[in-house]
Amino acid sequence: MDISKHGGDVFSAAEEYRLNLRDILDFSANINPLGPPLTAIRAIKDNLDLIVHYPDPDCRELKAAIRVYLGIDRDNILVGNGSIALIYQLVRMIKPQLALLPSPTFSEYELAIVKNGGRVRFAVLEEERNFALDIEDLIRRSDDVDIIFLCNPNNPTGSINTSAELEELINFAESRGIWVVIDEAFMDFIENKDRYSLATRSIRCDNLIVLGSLTKIFALAGLRLGYAVAKQDNIERLAKYTEPWSVNYLAQVAGVSALKDKEYIMRTKDLIRRERKRLWNELSTLRGIKPFPSVANYILVRILKAGRTADMLGKLLARKGILIRDCSSFRSLDERYIRLAVKDREANSKLLKELKYALSDPIAIKRGEV
Amino acid sequence: MDISKHGGDVFSAAEEYRLNLRDILDFSANINPLGPPLTAIRAIKDNLDLIVHYPDPDCRELKAAIRVYLGIDRDNILVGNGSIALIYQLVRMIKPQLALLPSPTFSEYELAIVKNGGRVRFAVLEEERNFALDIEDLIRRSDDVDIIFLCNPNNPTGSINTSAELEELINFAESRGIWVVIDEAFMDFIENKDRYSLATRSIRCDNLIVLGSLTKIFALAGLRLGYAVAKQDNIERLAKYTEPWSVNYLAQVAGVSALKDKEYIMRTKDLIRRERKRLWNELSTLRGIKPFPSVANYILVRILKAGRTADMLGKLLARKGILIRDCSSFRSLDERYIRLAVKDREANSKLLKELKYALSDPIAIKRGEV
Repeated sequence: MDISKHGGDVFSAAEEYRLNLRDILDFSANINPLGPPLTAIRAIKDNLDLIVHYPDPDCRELKAAIRVYLGIDRDNILVGNGSIALIYQLVRMIKPQLALLPSPTFSEYELAIVKNGGRVRFAVLEEERNFALDIEDLIRRSDDVDIIFLCNPNNPTGSINTSAELEELINFAESRGIWVVIDEAFMDFIENKDRYSLATRSIRCDNLIVLGSLTKIFALAGLRLGYAVAKQDNIERLAKYTEPWSVNYLAQVAGVSALKDKEYIMRTKDLIRRERKRLWNELSTLRGIKPFPSVANYILVRILKAGRTADMLGKLLARKGILIRDCSSFRSLDERYIRLAVKDREANSKLLKELKYALSDPIAIKRGEV
Repeated sequence: MDISKHGGDVFSAAEEYRLNLRDILDFSANINPLGPPLTAIRAIKDNLDLIVHYPDPDCRELKAAIRVYLGIDRDNILVGNGSIALIYQLVRMIKPQLALLPSPTFSEYELAIVKNGGRVRFAVLEEERNFALDIEDLIRRSDDVDIIFLCNPNNPTGSINTSAELEELINFAESRGIWVVIDEAFMDFIENKDRYSLATRSIRCDNLIVLGSLTKIFALAGLRLGYAVAKQDNIERLAKYTEPWSVNYLAQVAGVSALKDKEYIMRTKDLIRRERKRLWNELSTLRGIKPFPSVANYILVRILKAGRTADMLGKLLARKGILIRDCSSFRSLDERYIRLAVKDREANSKLLKELKYALSDPIAIKRGEV
């Protein structure tokens, strides 16, 4: 199992399946199907003449825009070259010897910890409970750990916890000096986000760091843009681990513009709510698979049909220009799980059609094509 | 002395001096005055629709373009989020306990080493010898070090060594298992680059890593783009310290296009040769300063006039929208040194005019304005 594999590698897929990049329907990365806000694209075009300069190393304008967006104080933000850069940065800062992670979850927490010499303890989420977090269990297992990573909503499972549900864990961790990192990379797709996000909470907590991403919600994955929210002295400490000019200028100007586009975020939430429901309903009528409940912009699916694996389905669909996430690289999952992003109506319909075919067609397998 | 200060911070200058970003003449960063190649700008515009996708994590097309540009084999390149990211990455890989650095030189080698728990020994370059590297001295001092960093041409001094001159040091280091990193960030501005660059040499050497930058020569500082060249197994080892998707997509496509633009590089070298000569000659006629010889696209200048410091000159010029590099943050230099980028004729003329005024005007100082 190579847990360092990720979805969204359209460049490899284009090469392997001889696809035009622009013809690919990518359900393997959880990106806003609306594409970047037009205001962000406009900001990039209008500022191309300024790429001769080094970017603002302190991302001042962007930090101000994030503060307004989140409604928080001024010294509680650090921007990074994607939130993944901040994961590595804070692991280098904290240097955890032992970390507690739910499983399955985003793999880079484990990779960052292990690369920095730490060990990982896993709290395996139960499929029977739709991979819901067992907070009592987490507390029981965290007595001797240095750090707990949670992804909320969780990737790839699509489950979520309210901030109230996480309060006991955070209080326990604070009393023991255990760091808690909440990765809210997909939080902006969630309705009633205020019930779930711990961003505001983190600025009053000694050992809580919340990570956010602007690349999923604003469809700017190619530009790289993430941020951390925490208490001011934690942000100052984390900032010392930032490498100069790590956030490129076009990401900064695109982020500033995108964050102001409230109408875009409303449209996004509407689309995702509607299409997630429809996609989930349709998936649950397909024979041979079972979608898990999700509040996020992606759905974890179990393959029930004998003789079908994620790899097989992935290959069958890739030939049609459709990419799905093979979840066999997720710890605690295996070759019987896939993850599907929620896209727009037309794309989802095409996915459903091809998935149905891939699940029903015995010929392709007989021919040895998969 | 805060050695973490850098030139090129147009955003701070714009704020502090209430300047329009687009009116600033920035001599404090050593960026190609031609601005980005038009082909690179075109590539960015033509590929904006693809920023919804994660960038190619392996930078395949860009690596191929760098290989062609350098004329080297295929598995000897690693791309980074600016060459500065690669400095930190290789320090994390090598974990040097003791490093040897010439002084003055680019400050991030020291910062990366110290932040990663190492110590630094300095070989101070003699001003009387125009800061030329004393290679015998370096060899004498390197017996017990783990790594040697050299910047060639050196920043901020503008001195350079041929690959033949460095051969003895490299052989010595190889025989002792000492890593040598040659930062060639400004090498592309140099005529007869082949006499100086060790990029080709590095792919046959066990412990030599050459760093290159595409942001200075192609005026893409805002996008971040650098690379490392080394023996294949060193590149593979270094790649393990790369964080996923660290190089944004627009930097990749801009780099691919820019590297093909040979005419642009020729025009750049012509311009820099002509304008460096003229700027140097004019600077040497100004009373109160002394420029040091330079082969690069910047000139180190000593302030001789009593009562004038780099900070004063910097402030006087900044009010006119001209930024210069105050070199007091360079170890082994002090408040009597500035560094000036070589720009185009018109910009250089404006710099010379304002510099002359700043050096001659006693009134501003009396008024307490500086």
